[in-house]
Amino acid sequence: MSTEVTISTEHIYEGRVIKVRVDTVRLGNGKVSKREIVDHRGAVALVAIDENDRVLLVRQYRKAADKELLEIPAGTLEAGEDPLACAHRELAEETGFSASRIERLTGFFPVPGYSTEFLHVYAATGLQPAAGSADEDEDIEVVPTPLARALDMVVSGEICDGKSIVGLLLYARLKGD
Amino acid sequence: MSTEVTISTEHIYEGRVIKVRVDTVRLGNGKVSKREIVDHRGAVALVAIDENDRVLLVRQYRKAADKELLEIPAGTLEAGEDPLACAHRELAEETGFSASRIERLTGFFPVPGYSTEFLHVYAATGLQPAAGSADEDEDIEVVPTPLARALDMVVSGEICDGKSIVGLLLYARLKGD
Repeated sequence: MSTEVTISTEHIYEGRVIKVRVDTVRLGNGKVSKREIVDHRGAVALVAIDENDRVLLVRQYRKAADKELLEIPAGTLEAGEDPLACAHRELAEETGFSASRIERLTGFFPVPGYSTEFLHVYAATGLQPAAGSADEDEDIEVVPTPLARALDMVVSGEICDGKSIVGLLLYARLKGD
Repeated sequence: MSTEVTISTEHIYEGRVIKVRVDTVRLGNGKVSKREIVDHRGAVALVAIDENDRVLLVRQYRKAADKELLEIPAGTLEAGEDPLACAHRELAEETGFSASRIERLTGFFPVPGYSTEFLHVYAATGLQPAAGSADEDEDIEVVPTPLARALDMVVSGEICDGKSIVGLLLYARLKGD
């Protein structure tokens, strides 16, 4: 096994959320191949738990999935933004709550086969209503859900968003639920 | 909350693994916005467990992540391919094993914010050496790992691939580990 050496890069697209490039690479065995890559700034997601052990889920229509999904709050990093600061911002924007304590659970690549996105996952507790300013491009319903019920929804497939499954299962495992 | 009505679609790129389009949509509140979308055929991933309760992990360099990652075996659906057939094919190609039993664990959207990809996750047992034909564009090392150790690597962040975290944590939860 070995790294792949980039021979050339073709820049395909530069958008608001993603960029797209195609790298021509030399593999470890000497062969030449193409890698189609989505450049993404990275993102954060939060398992936000209130004093009644309810997790704040958000329901929103996702154009790429062409359906409404139930997810944990999340958002894309602004250029140069600290992930923890982004977590505080997204929690307020999407749920209207602030958290007195936000701890890192993990970080992972959601689709390392074609996207550079790295997603930081946090647990947020000590929730208080905040003066959140909703993103006008988002239409989000906050759904406080008992943690045990949310975990059942992961197992049943009713929660079918990757970052939400990772956050909820990892939080439950660390907590011993 | 409501769906988003597509007003127009700009086709940006058509590659081997992904296509890219930008949809102009009308939101529920009447505003117009853009959605940058990666079209993907979908994929499968397998938690493959041998008779010694070891999970077959694969280590490979990922250009998008720019590092070697330890993952569960996975692969993209061919056009029109049945996900279960794809699971059998990818298991053989990536690990050199066949499975007498492959059961569905779940399915999820890894990045519903910008990709149509839906990923089917299976548990594979009854492993036997198979005549696998390795993909020449892939350079993969198979790493049989005790399940308990793999779960520790999820918690520590050493395993940092989304589908692998989902598969391993869900398998462990259903199995009661």
